[in-house]
Amino acid sequence: MSRAIILFSGGIDSTTTFAIAVQQGFEPVALSIDYGQRHRLELEKGREVLLQFPVHTQIVFPVDLTGIGGSALTADIPVPKSREMDQSIPVTYVPARNLIFLSIAAAFAEVHQAFDIFYGANVLDYSGYPDCRPEFIEAFEKTLRVGTKAGIDGSCFRIHAPLLKMTKAEIVLAGIRLGVDYSHTHSCYDPFPDGIACGKCDSCVIRRKGFSEAGATDPATYRVYPS
Amino acid sequence: MSRAIILFSGGIDSTTTFAIAVQQGFEPVALSIDYGQRHRLELEKGREVLLQFPVHTQIVFPVDLTGIGGSALTADIPVPKSREMDQSIPVTYVPARNLIFLSIAAAFAEVHQAFDIFYGANVLDYSGYPDCRPEFIEAFEKTLRVGTKAGIDGSCFRIHAPLLKMTKAEIVLAGIRLGVDYSHTHSCYDPFPDGIACGKCDSCVIRRKGFSEAGATDPATYRVYPS
Repeated sequence: MSRAIILFSGGIDSTTTFAIAVQQGFEPVALSIDYGQRHRLELEKGREVLLQFPVHTQIVFPVDLTGIGGSALTADIPVPKSREMDQSIPVTYVPARNLIFLSIAAAFAEVHQAFDIFYGANVLDYSGYPDCRPEFIEAFEKTLRVGTKAGIDGSCFRIHAPLLKMTKAEIVLAGIRLGVDYSHTHSCYDPFPDGIACGKCDSCVIRRKGFSEAGATDPATYRVYPS
Repeated sequence: MSRAIILFSGGIDSTTTFAIAVQQGFEPVALSIDYGQRHRLELEKGREVLLQFPVHTQIVFPVDLTGIGGSALTADIPVPKSREMDQSIPVTYVPARNLIFLSIAAAFAEVHQAFDIFYGANVLDYSGYPDCRPEFIEAFEKTLRVGTKAGIDGSCFRIHAPLLKMTKAEIVLAGIRLGVDYSHTHSCYDPFPDGIACGKCDSCVIRRKGFSEAGATDPATYRVYPS
């Protein structure tokens, strides 16, 4: 049974990705990065989400990206609400975040001999993050092949992004088919102090639309801002 | 004046690289990574080394790679002494270290609009680290071009590795020509508790050989193990 590292935030995408890795027969290792995110609740919720999977290991790795700044998710920049969705790159973009996360995953991959790395990137509902694009994944795989001991020794790093071309609705449906329980998943970028989702940030809007289009009930509770 | 990020450990290579970036007209920002290295002295020494440069900014960014393990530099694996130098990858290899460091540098680059990133990799005296090879640098540059907001917006990330094909002797000579004062630089992987270099680890052996071949005096103090 081959081991896989799954970048795991406890949201819809990474939870579905985790379930897909399990279905594909991998022994899953969840790698959760504590990067000083505003929505730190996702780290706590993530542990609850994982309990539904009979076999799971979770590694929590701290790397404080607040020192880098430049994003509404880590610095003191307001999270936009109900903005026009377009393909521009939003202020919630954390510079080089997935690059840093995947680099850390590659280090764990090398130490734990788990050369399959899963992450929940997708290009359709992705709010324009450049490090969720297929060109990025391909270039990064090449970097690992030529720039790590394991790669040079012939181990084949594979970056799996099974959700890459799925809409949020398709992701939700795929998860439901795999029996995923989404009740503890957390998506909101800017929850209220009691943890209730705002319903208006990009992430909430995309999530709600996804469940709605999938004809499924979103188990999250929202305290929607007055419009 | 264009800003550059220089990965800076306070050793011979990164100090020379810093001086080269200054000579090339960049406004230099030293990025020192506190990664839980055994030879933590290098972080303290680094500050002293930088004092010789009239303009310098230093960022110390913590990311604790001891949680990843797998290397004599971060885990509880003995640092080899007086080993046969060959092209095999040594136990002091930290999995994906330069990849993680350069990814962090890329994040700072994006926030600080400093798209020139310097690091002191070299392929000759490099003890076989895969993430010091030109193929790695090229693949990583491509990853930044396609996987960051700045890259997509047309900013041109350049990874500079000016020492890539230099021997340690050539590096020392280049530094001396630029007026570098190496007296505070630290190289030893496994110093004695009082900070004196061991003289026998790969890094000490390469350094001593470099100064010797350059016909220069090594300002470091060694307490050489009995052979």
